[in-house]
Amino acid sequence: MSVDSMEKLFVEELRDIYSAENQITKALPKMVKAATSNELRTALEHHLRETEEQVKRLEQIFEMIGESSKGKTCEGMKGVLEEGDRTVNDAKQGAVRDEAIISGCQRVEHYEMAAYGTVRTYAQNLGKQQMVQLLDKTLEEEKAADRKLTEISNQVHSQARRAA
Amino acid sequence: MSVDSMEKLFVEELRDIYSAENQITKALPKMVKAATSNELRTALEHHLRETEEQVKRLEQIFEMIGESSKGKTCEGMKGVLEEGDRTVNDAKQGAVRDEAIISGCQRVEHYEMAAYGTVRTYAQNLGKQQMVQLLDKTLEEEKAADRKLTEISNQVHSQARRAA
Repeated sequence: MSVDSMEKLFVEELRDIYSAENQITKALPKMVKAATSNELRTALEHHLRETEEQVKRLEQIFEMIGESSKGKTCEGMKGVLEEGDRTVNDAKQGAVRDEAIISGCQRVEHYEMAAYGTVRTYAQNLGKQQMVQLLDKTLEEEKAADRKLTEISNQVHSQARRAA
Repeated sequence: MSVDSMEKLFVEELRDIYSAENQITKALPKMVKAATSNELRTALEHHLRETEEQVKRLEQIFEMIGESSKGKTCEGMKGVLEEGDRTVNDAKQGAVRDEAIISGCQRVEHYEMAAYGTVRTYAQNLGKQQMVQLLDKTLEEEKAADRKLTEISNQVHSQARRAA
């Protein structure tokens, strides 16, 4: 029971997200390669650049609190990414695989929404206003990325229907 | 590449959620035991009963489409639950552990929101209106459970502050 204060839980949760984000930066290029739709590829490439900025924002927060970002593997994200990878590999290239990619990525986005929502609330309750702002920025980006993926899923669906 | 149509992807995704829900029904009683706040315990017990109904709704859908619910382990939920379990065990009993439980459960809820959002859209696009209604009902319950957890987190925080 090493985590005996909200300050410590805050650091643990930040390390978890930091590991998650780093896993995502490794996984996204594979998803870009597997995608057929241009819109999907562009959106994933855009989100990869966004994720790199989000990693930097977390590093800024670790500097502010004087803690190391290292020491944790986010098991949640590991599972989500492994599962996404398998589903994508099992799916036929084209519209079905694109939908599988979108499905996996939306699970990733939702994981992040939950995680950033949590640390944003902790930062708020601990009176760390500057960190709230940084975390809020990322949280809004994750929500926007999720909405964009829903849009693309609808496009992929109508294009597949027109082609059928 | 066994998944070559949206119908097959729909079944795969349903099996994934079915496995996730069954994992959750096993994990929730442990979370109830670990919780200190009465509100949190009550909310988790309520959500356990809700989850059991959600499992039945999925079984109804599998019957409608004449497919087996079995054959898949949701690796995403497995990772999320393992991680949640570890975080809760590391946290000191009381307000900090309650916050750790809430954090883990919100990751679970968000995973489910993404997963149900996906299959609801697939059902819609495949013209399976009765299934859309069943999946929508669950999706709304997951969103409500997430909001309730945020409320309880704020209560736990103010109670801990008054006690300090």
